[in-house]
Amino acid sequence: MIFVDSDRLRADFDALSQFGATGDGGVHRPSLGEAHLAARAWLRERIVQAELQFHIDGAGNHSGVLTSERSNVPTLLLGSHTDSVPHGGRFDGALGVVCAFEVLRVAKEHRVALTMNLEAIDFTDEEGTLVGLLGSTAMVGKLKPEHLSSPRGGRDALQAGLARAGLNEQRMLSAARPRESLGGYLELHIEQGTRLIKAQKNIGIVTDIIGIAAYRLAFIGRADHAGTTPMLDRLDAAQGASAFTLAAREIVMHDFPRGVATVGKMEFAPGAFNIVPASVVVSLEFRAPSDDEMERMDQALLECAHREAARFGLALDIEFLGRHAPTLMSQMAQDAFVEACEALGLSSIPLVSGAGHDAQSLASLCPVGMIFVPSVGGASHSPKEFTEWQDCVNGANVLLQAALQIAA
Amino acid sequence: MIFVDSDRLRADFDALSQFGATGDGGVHRPSLGEAHLAARAWLRERIVQAELQFHIDGAGNHSGVLTSERSNVPTLLLGSHTDSVPHGGRFDGALGVVCAFEVLRVAKEHRVALTMNLEAIDFTDEEGTLVGLLGSTAMVGKLKPEHLSSPRGGRDALQAGLARAGLNEQRMLSAARPRESLGGYLELHIEQGTRLIKAQKNIGIVTDIIGIAAYRLAFIGRADHAGTTPMLDRLDAAQGASAFTLAAREIVMHDFPRGVATVGKMEFAPGAFNIVPASVVVSLEFRAPSDDEMERMDQALLECAHREAARFGLALDIEFLGRHAPTLMSQMAQDAFVEACEALGLSSIPLVSGAGHDAQSLASLCPVGMIFVPSVGGASHSPKEFTEWQDCVNGANVLLQAALQIAA
Repeated sequence: MIFVDSDRLRADFDALSQFGATGDGGVHRPSLGEAHLAARAWLRERIVQAELQFHIDGAGNHSGVLTSERSNVPTLLLGSHTDSVPHGGRFDGALGVVCAFEVLRVAKEHRVALTMNLEAIDFTDEEGTLVGLLGSTAMVGKLKPEHLSSPRGGRDALQAGLARAGLNEQRMLSAARPRESLGGYLELHIEQGTRLIKAQKNIGIVTDIIGIAAYRLAFIGRADHAGTTPMLDRLDAAQGASAFTLAAREIVMHDFPRGVATVGKMEFAPGAFNIVPASVVVSLEFRAPSDDEMERMDQALLECAHREAARFGLALDIEFLGRHAPTLMSQMAQDAFVEACEALGLSSIPLVSGAGHDAQSLASLCPVGMIFVPSVGGASHSPKEFTEWQDCVNGANVLLQAALQIAA
Repeated sequence: MIFVDSDRLRADFDALSQFGATGDGGVHRPSLGEAHLAARAWLRERIVQAELQFHIDGAGNHSGVLTSERSNVPTLLLGSHTDSVPHGGRFDGALGVVCAFEVLRVAKEHRVALTMNLEAIDFTDEEGTLVGLLGSTAMVGKLKPEHLSSPRGGRDALQAGLARAGLNEQRMLSAARPRESLGGYLELHIEQGTRLIKAQKNIGIVTDIIGIAAYRLAFIGRADHAGTTPMLDRLDAAQGASAFTLAAREIVMHDFPRGVATVGKMEFAPGAFNIVPASVVVSLEFRAPSDDEMERMDQALLECAHREAARFGLALDIEFLGRHAPTLMSQMAQDAFVEACEALGLSSIPLVSGAGHDAQSLASLCPVGMIFVPSVGGASHSPKEFTEWQDCVNGANVLLQAALQIAA
């Protein structure tokens, strides 16, 4: 059995953590921002130094490739993403990218005879600062012009990001890879929850990824003077938005115990102390593990928005931003991970992923699988994110064994 | 009796309305922004063309002065402000400035023998995009370093505005005028409500200006992954902020029928779809016509904020941004306005002002008075602001007669 090099992996992880470092253990590396592009330039250099082929596609996905000596074989993708949420943690995504890269280095050093090419990939905009799962959606040919014309991060931010990265929308829309070129996709990620630690297990083997949908809900009233307009004469957008935010939580807690809903942002216009707000735009996201629950939550939350808008005399403008159905992981990949854990003497449990991942996109083209490593305290999308280094190394070794089982 | 020149006044009003015009009848002219500074450059040129003395003080207040032939006499200020709220109307403030300027021109043309100097003044930042009543507070010597160190519009916006206008904080803090130099302050303003139109009266004579206070309330929770964090494990700042926004309205409607409270803005951090918000900063403003009501509202609203924060496990950070006590208008000024209306054959009623005005600041140094002209539909701080032109001219003539009664 061959193993990853813990020290080399650690050096890469620490180096990557410096890009966009916020000084509190976290990173601020929104997709295609300056810090993210600097991280990618570093990754490119590391790939070239390791004498792997460097590849970048129309969606800006960055890859290192180790080709099989056989020709016309498919590629097993291993990867994750180097972008972060605003003021996020240094493990989410980044750990999966450096582990994938390490797997290729180890395979190359040991001159493993490959039956598939191995590709370590850093997907563009997994987190959705711009669109969400952007690079992987483009790769599987499901990116549509409407994803780019009203992205959830706003059109200006998307255009600025593409310009900074030297990308363009036309090439992005043409970045699809042929189905036959892909042999599978494996990803290592932090759990972003406390189930592994509570169960005292080393590795979580993902069975399903939860479904996710996002809306922008604009509650629209009327701007009025905050001193001269009596309370009862107001059409106050803040009241509708606030009432919806409270009611959405109640609905989910009572009727959807397996789901979550989040108001991550409100934008007030005009947004002054002394003006009754004319509009408040609510960023709503919700998730559930089955199609049926997704469908019912969608209906319940939009009905709630209509009801609360009407209660305060407001109009409601609903913008649907996208949806990912709940996704099953491939049995072949789950089996490979189970065997790898057994071979390495590591404990494992099956887990549902509450977070979205690029594997959701890839699942439409090839077998996909994911493993989780334990998150201390469960903190996620936060500078407090932390995983013990031995757990990171364990995960990397599981990824290595599973990849070799599939591609060697 | 002498009168204002309606056509000349109209030409000035229309010219001023072009600066920051938003194309829908409104203006976007936040204090010390580009459009506001362009409007002030235009005003300066008009003052010079009218052969009045141009004056600008350390707080950036712009004035045209018509001096009495007597020496060592006090000055009667007439004025208002040319700044607007974001995306506001073209009448609020601007009408009072052009009317004050017109009064000086008429007095000069008719070579009125003045017992006081007349000064038409455009006060800096009445609306509070930066600090609120900034120019008038500086003029009466009540501007403190703490007003400038944590302004309600944010420190960056204040510094950028001062730099654009060529002002500095030290001069601003030293812009006080001696008490004996001021003989009074009169202001014409739109009503920003519908009481005059409902009562079918020409002129509102202000008796009191309502008190006003502002806070920034930070509800502080914890950033968490929006997919992997169960609803019950969240410390969601959006819940506390929303619950406060709803409860504040209920408190005011039930316990303070003469008061108002407004949440004009919330700022979410980190502010992403897929992160439970770690903090939400609520911009709160409230107003009431008596000291007692102000005191009780303050207590009730802050208690409510504490209660709602605690309910969702959040911390609460309270930043007090300032307070203006309810202000009585001078009887002398009210009498002068009543007499002017009678002489002109115009109807009038006494009114309380629900909006804050620079007269609140001036009241600590000299007698102050205000008149309102009718607002069609009551729209205010909105592009829909409108006053019939004849009502504007009526108001200007009342201001002229009252000024001459006091200063001639």
